[in-house]
Amino acid sequence: MKNVCLTIQYDGTNLHGWQRQKDAITVQQLLEDAVLALTQETVHIIGCGRTDAGVHALAYVCNFKTNASIPDESFPAAMNTKLPPAVRVLQAKTVSDDFHAQFDVVRKRYVYKIQTSTIPDVFLSPYTWHYPHKLDIEKMQRAAAHFLGEHNFEGFCASGATVTSFVRTIYDFSVTKDGDVITLSVCGNGFLYNMVRILAGTLVYVGNGKIDADDIPQILESRDRARAGITAPPHGLYMAATEYKE
Amino acid sequence: MKNVCLTIQYDGTNLHGWQRQKDAITVQQLLEDAVLALTQETVHIIGCGRTDAGVHALAYVCNFKTNASIPDESFPAAMNTKLPPAVRVLQAKTVSDDFHAQFDVVRKRYVYKIQTSTIPDVFLSPYTWHYPHKLDIEKMQRAAAHFLGEHNFEGFCASGATVTSFVRTIYDFSVTKDGDVITLSVCGNGFLYNMVRILAGTLVYVGNGKIDADDIPQILESRDRARAGITAPPHGLYMAATEYKE
Repeated sequence: MKNVCLTIQYDGTNLHGWQRQKDAITVQQLLEDAVLALTQETVHIIGCGRTDAGVHALAYVCNFKTNASIPDESFPAAMNTKLPPAVRVLQAKTVSDDFHAQFDVVRKRYVYKIQTSTIPDVFLSPYTWHYPHKLDIEKMQRAAAHFLGEHNFEGFCASGATVTSFVRTIYDFSVTKDGDVITLSVCGNGFLYNMVRILAGTLVYVGNGKIDADDIPQILESRDRARAGITAPPHGLYMAATEYKE
Repeated sequence: MKNVCLTIQYDGTNLHGWQRQKDAITVQQLLEDAVLALTQETVHIIGCGRTDAGVHALAYVCNFKTNASIPDESFPAAMNTKLPPAVRVLQAKTVSDDFHAQFDVVRKRYVYKIQTSTIPDVFLSPYTWHYPHKLDIEKMQRAAAHFLGEHNFEGFCASGATVTSFVRTIYDFSVTKDGDVITLSVCGNGFLYNMVRILAGTLVYVGNGKIDADDIPQILESRDRARAGITAPPHGLYMAATEYKE
């Protein structure tokens, strides 16, 4: 039996996130069904983390154990014949038996995209948050820098989270603009539930002047969800990369 | 009563083309319903041409007569509140009473997009034809040049067309490549039913060597649909621009 690690891409528009659910199409279920169709094995696929309904993935990592004799290089094309066009396996790699896509992550990167044009581009609408107002990029960049390093992110977490610690480290957080599209890219050692969407909503509030960039340290210290910005909608969010321990 | 000309954009993925139909969502119906909701008028909207199910539009022009007192500059935002995100009114302009979006067109431009990567990018899949094979761009450009000027396009038209003439003039036809995406852009005084999709399928056959670029003049002269390439799928096609007589 081998442990296969997949890197996949998905357009989350019509999907209900990663985790298998009753009465909703999820990425985990589509992949497990594809493996079943391909190998006649019922496998449990471990994902690098949950994603909400509507969230996209540029490179999502997951793993599963299989007795299939399919070589790594043949796995992507074989699985892709069993998947809808919105989900593609980009790469398959046999890894050590103890590799675990969720527990072994050391860094994750998320990207969040916002389009600010008055009338949204229909081809970007499923893939960006349409926020038709002027946003001050320099203020957003200044605010993003305040999140770097280790902080308690309790104020940047959806209520009801059951975690033992709200402390996370942010390694980099960039804000760039290309025409009417603003892209946030944030890398950290882990993210709380809805944390990236709340960071995005907070930077937007900084960009439009509702929050002062230099109030971010105080807002973090307050641990008060009400002082951060809104939770940005899921369809602007992309799971972009994961890094694993050696 | 004024004659209002709209320029709209739409993502055709979940639409059944322009023309109103029973039991299918079409752009014409969505726009007529939006005008009804906005002005309580039942209008007939004239489009610049039919588009098939799945075809997109970057700038589609249509017009209708209305007694509404809404100023031109307020029309787009007002209509957009009544439309799904896949359809956006970009511009509204009061035009002369005799302007007709279909009959007055003098030039139209269509764009066709192809992605050639082995594994398709999920975010491009709804908007490109995935053709995972090497295509020779120079041969495609050479073939495209043979279509310039006035020709009888009977061999590049879906059967069952009821037209009085198959003669059309092509003013320009470019083939460009950006990474794994090939973009065809063709401008002419008019296009027969499925003509752009057959031109795209023919250029792909030239790109992969099934048709010789310099056989295009003979294929045109033959007026034989079987000698041209396949009809490329609708979701790579975009109605891109229309030009009207002064």
